[in-house]
Amino acid sequence: RLTRWLAPSTTARAHCDLPCGIYDPEQARIEAESCHRILEKYATNEDPTFRGRCIHIKEERAELVKHHLDVLWHDYFKPPHFEKYPGLHTLFNDTIKQASACKQSNDPADGQKLLDGIEQIAAIFWETKKA
Amino acid sequence: RLTRWLAPSTTARAHCDLPCGIYDPEQARIEAESCHRILEKYATNEDPTFRGRCIHIKEERAELVKHHLDVLWHDYFKPPHFEKYPGLHTLFNDTIKQASACKQSNDPADGQKLLDGIEQIAAIFWETKKA
Amino acid sequence: RLTRWLAPSTTARAHCDLPCGIYDPEQARIEAESCHRILEKYATNEDPTFRGRCIHIKEERAELVKHHLDVLWHDYFKPPHFEKYPGLHTLFNDTIKQASACKQSNDPADGQKLLDGIEQIAAIFWETKKA
Amino acid sequence: RLTRWLAPSTTARAHCDLPCGIYDPEQARIEAESCHRILEKYATNEDPTFRGRCIHIKEERAELVKHHLDVLWHDYFKPPHFEKYPGLHTLFNDTIKQASACKQSNDPADGQKLLDGIEQIAAIFWETKKA
Amino acid sequence: RLTRWLAPSTTARAHCDLPCGIYDPEQARIEAESCHRILEKYATNEDPTFRGRCIHIKEERAELVKHHLDVLWHDYFKPPHFEKYPGLHTLFNDTIKQASACKQSNDPADGQKLLDGIEQIAAIFWETKKA
Amino acid sequence: RLTRWLAPSTTARAHCDLPCGIYDPEQARIEAESCHRILEKYATNEDPTFRGRCIHIKEERAELVKHHLDVLWHDYFKPPHFEKYPGLHTLFNDTIKQASACKQSNDPADGQKLLDGIEQIAAIFWETKKA
Repeated sequence: RLTRWLAPSTTARAHCDLPCGIYDPEQARIEAESCHRILEKYATNEDPTFRGRCIHIKEERAELVKHHLDVLWHDYFKPPHFEKYPGLHTLFNDTIKQASACKQSNDPADGQKLLDGIEQIAAIFWETKKA
Repeated sequence: RLTRWLAPSTTARAHCDLPCGIYDPEQARIEAESCHRILEKYATNEDPTFRGRCIHIKEERAELVKHHLDVLWHDYFKPPHFEKYPGLHTLFNDTIKQASACKQSNDPADGQKLLDGIEQIAAIFWETKKA
Repeated sequence: RLTRWLAPSTTARAHCDLPCGIYDPEQARIEAESCHRILEKYATNEDPTFRGRCIHIKEERAELVKHHLDVLWHDYFKPPHFEKYPGLHTLFNDTIKQASACKQSNDPADGQKLLDGIEQIAAIFWETKKA
Repeated sequence: RLTRWLAPSTTARAHCDLPCGIYDPEQARIEAESCHRILEKYATNEDPTFRGRCIHIKEERAELVKHHLDVLWHDYFKPPHFEKYPGLHTLFNDTIKQASACKQSNDPADGQKLLDGIEQIAAIFWETKKA
Repeated sequence: RLTRWLAPSTTARAHCDLPCGIYDPEQARIEAESCHRILEKYATNEDPTFRGRCIHIKEERAELVKHHLDVLWHDYFKPPHFEKYPGLHTLFNDTIKQASACKQSNDPADGQKLLDGIEQIAAIFWETKKA
Repeated sequence: RLTRWLAPSTTARAHCDLPCGIYDPEQARIEAESCHRILEKYATNEDPTFRGRCIHIKEERAELVKHHLDVLWHDYFKPPHFEKYPGLHTLFNDTIKQASACKQSNDPADGQKLLDGIEQIAAIFWETKKA
């Protein structure tokens, strides 16, 4: 992750469909960290109300992960990127499916796997920014 | 429309992330028809309020197109489908980018192009249902 | 599904409030099928996380059914329709109440009853389109 | 406003679909007042950005009016109410169509007409509460 | 409720960000009453589906309370108000935190405490309207 | 901003109301950068459709800024924080009002002012994380 934190902070990023040009994988990562944390908290708290809330809130946060990844996939990345990174479609598709897995699972390992996928996407994202 | 009601009703389709198993490209198509129609109406009505509303509403309907296509791409289609249809990732990515183009454009041809992309996706979808 | 694509494509349908003129009872039906399927899955799976998700997701899908029916009732149907079909207000009101019943119930029969109501609405809808 | 706080606080009202039993036509009225005020402000301000925002925001507030009226119509009112008030379906349908008219119009009179419809609905609502 | 309809109707209230000038603490109060009622219903009904729905729906209604209070705090109240009512920031912050408490709690007393906070906010709100 | 980028990346952050414990001012900042960029693009493009879209999309992004700041203000910050930073309530209230100003304005300087406020909030946020 060091490269990410050392990246120049003047980089332009875009995420609305104007497009305004502000994209940032942090949006997906923050929601994914939330999924991960909820899965951890669920594992150590057997109160049924707490667990009911976990299931419900995790559903929402994972949905946001999916949305933010969708946005990167179809709004930020362009055909030349997909040519340069032939596995990028599959990486996105798998990572988003992993967000769905986080909805269905109570295993914190699924949250970690989601974070790992997003980290790979972020690495490619920041490479394309430097180019 | 008689044929519609005579169509076999056993077809399984999924669209929530339970997953419930109900998917249907009609959801994307209906919103895309709306985009198309709005573009046509915009072209023939110069009232500024009407046009302001067109721009705003088209934005929302195109966003729904994107969402419904996202759902098909990552919730319905599975790795074996992407193996069988190697161009499917690109077809989805291009069609969703075309929905963005409908937000930015005032040309009805962009709406038609979006509908064409959805029709191609739907054709593959129904093929996989038959398999 | 060949018949689907052979169906006349000139049918006008409306669903946003421009109005764009694209309405289609399929939107309500697809969400209702999802409710029905979730109720069926709930009945055969006793895992508490799965059931918690069913309750939550069914709530959302049923809400969408209600919304799509609301749109048909007040955006598509006009006074002359209500004159011609005197039971239409009640059919809509009952069917939407049935969507609420699907939120409260765990019985797949409630999902089927919802689908039946939507089918009746769709039959009237398509009749008015032919007129 | 003293009278407000002296009003009997035991009145039962419902608006979520639990149902919790808290309904209140104030929700629709507040949004409708917003539509009305926006129409008035639009009429006296020719700045294009201001007007663009009016059109967009009015669309949202009118949509909320429609939603709150939908909720009253299908969640609060029951078959015996519709028997007792035979014009209630039409009153709701017309008032909601008037909310759509507020989206399409720039005339403050349309906002007033919407408020009038809601006032009639509220009068019936409070009658049924007393019963 | 007669007093309600006799209340002066000229009071200006604002709640969208045009701003249209229509604000009203009733919006927060109605949602808070819903939270309170759900907590009461939860306490007397042990059906797991009902309770699952309570947890989920209470989450949404409490979120709406928070939103409506946020709007009052930053859209309606202006610097001179905060000077005149030095405890107002804290009253808002505490009341909104109490809405979060209602999500986490199954105790109707938490719903009442939320309503009490909103009543204090409403009292200040109406005082500033008279000024 | 250097301090922010040098901050240890293991810091726990919370943003849903479980609470999961993942908060991050980046969420507000990313949306605010979008507002800023839209204001800049608006200034250099006179196409009416483009400008109509800018007004509409800026409205949404600014609303998200407000929401993310609201969440930090009432979900992350606790009474001891407000004691330690007596100007924090006002800083939040002013910054959120500045997000409203970005909706109403076409001046990129308003976007910069919003970013400045968020940077101040972020500085305090990260200080409390280190404590």
